[in-house]
Amino acid sequence: MCGHDVIASVRAQVLSRRHLLLGGAAAGAAVTAASLAPPRAAAQTAGGTIRDLTHTLSPDFPTFFGEPQFAIEQLFHFDKDGFNLFKYTVNEHTGTHVDAPLHFSADGQSVDEIPVDNLMAPLAVVDIAAKAAEDPDAQVTPDDLKAWIAANGDIPERACVALYSGWERFVSSDKFRNVGDDGKMHFPGFHVEAAQMLIEETSAVGIAVDTLSLDYGPSPDFATHYKWLPTNRWGVECVAGLGELPPTGATIILGAPKHAGGSGGPARVFALV
Amino acid sequence: MCGHDVIASVRAQVLSRRHLLLGGAAAGAAVTAASLAPPRAAAQTAGGTIRDLTHTLSPDFPTFFGEPQFAIEQLFHFDKDGFNLFKYTVNEHTGTHVDAPLHFSADGQSVDEIPVDNLMAPLAVVDIAAKAAEDPDAQVTPDDLKAWIAANGDIPERACVALYSGWERFVSSDKFRNVGDDGKMHFPGFHVEAAQMLIEETSAVGIAVDTLSLDYGPSPDFATHYKWLPTNRWGVECVAGLGELPPTGATIILGAPKHAGGSGGPARVFALV
Repeated sequence: MCGHDVIASVRAQVLSRRHLLLGGAAAGAAVTAASLAPPRAAAQTAGGTIRDLTHTLSPDFPTFFGEPQFAIEQLFHFDKDGFNLFKYTVNEHTGTHVDAPLHFSADGQSVDEIPVDNLMAPLAVVDIAAKAAEDPDAQVTPDDLKAWIAANGDIPERACVALYSGWERFVSSDKFRNVGDDGKMHFPGFHVEAAQMLIEETSAVGIAVDTLSLDYGPSPDFATHYKWLPTNRWGVECVAGLGELPPTGATIILGAPKHAGGSGGPARVFALV
Repeated sequence: MCGHDVIASVRAQVLSRRHLLLGGAAAGAAVTAASLAPPRAAAQTAGGTIRDLTHTLSPDFPTFFGEPQFAIEQLFHFDKDGFNLFKYTVNEHTGTHVDAPLHFSADGQSVDEIPVDNLMAPLAVVDIAAKAAEDPDAQVTPDDLKAWIAANGDIPERACVALYSGWERFVSSDKFRNVGDDGKMHFPGFHVEAAQMLIEETSAVGIAVDTLSLDYGPSPDFATHYKWLPTNRWGVECVAGLGELPPTGATIILGAPKHAGGSGGPARVFALV
């Protein structure tokens, strides 16, 4: 059966079924469905509570390149077809998204090749919101990492180290890209020397930022991308909700997409707390 | 700065940087990068071990409609541009993917509206592989659920109940769709009466199948989709790796995409064991 035959068959069946429903107890069914929804839980018990670190993606989500990178089209409509279905086109590096090692290397791991063991990691949150409020070009430096270690102990084994700059509060405004009079973007990022320190002195598997790039906005050379990703470590950009997490003790789960050979992609990111 | 300006600037900076690298210690840098990769872990400690329940997505991944639903295009190439970047177009219901309540309802939760607490759930795996080996149209029935309960205790609170039919072993062949001489597909699914039982007698938040549809292949009417999804419960289709999980005790984490208003989409699905 070819695709069009299936679609035609589905539509005919669906319309027939909807006719029955509409002619029968449609209103009653709606009430029943609502009353049958699963109860909301205050919190999960297994593994602690789960938090969402993911921004909602839409066509106007801000992008590094400044132009829309997500488009969606509805192919089937419930009213007409009996079900809803969309297709979408997306640049991999859009929304809350992962940078696979392949993004900035010739032969690093593609997004489907990142070992699953690397997608769950203890989360160290480095809070530079105070200095970012003073200077949009603030970066996580080795001194920030040393201060974190002094306060919280060693960076955990196989950790994800996250930059919390507070920048997510600007996600719906031009301030997220923050293009200055100099034509450059200005937002916080990871200093290449901090990346170097994590590579040399820890077993960290990933870094996370709440801004558009691992490198700070005015970076002329993607120094942090080039330092970090070719070592088969991952990055995740435009992360949400970091400000509500403890500096240590949470676990990040990186729901990276798994398309063959990809350099990254929109991800669902969680924290277990 | 417009997008094209940024791209041009990036390319110029990158080529300049690559020139330095290639003129310098490129070979040495490659060796260093490999040696600096994080160590592989035998297992995660926090939350137990993590398993991947996700198939790799590619343009030839089998689809319900029988035609390709994923296309990918490389926009930037490392050799030329200094970094790799792709864009892709995908039908939401492709690969290992979530069915949001909105897929088969007028106003159920869209994929971004599914409460995060519902995306982590105790996993009950109902193994019908033996009867699916005899009959490709096998379905999970209330009797299968009762047998699972007799063996394992009550369905956990706010669970995901998964059908394991062994069908994933056919994912690279026509047998995954298994179109018969009658022109219909033949693969296992959830019987609508099993969905009804879960709605009435449990607090389950989701169901999972290792086949192309919550409904079995020859379904004429999507009865299970229409029963289950409008109650604001989710489904996930084309799940991998269920055969290596215990019948109870694992936790599923559904890394659903989070685009506004979507009816579902390719998801990264994990189990914590």
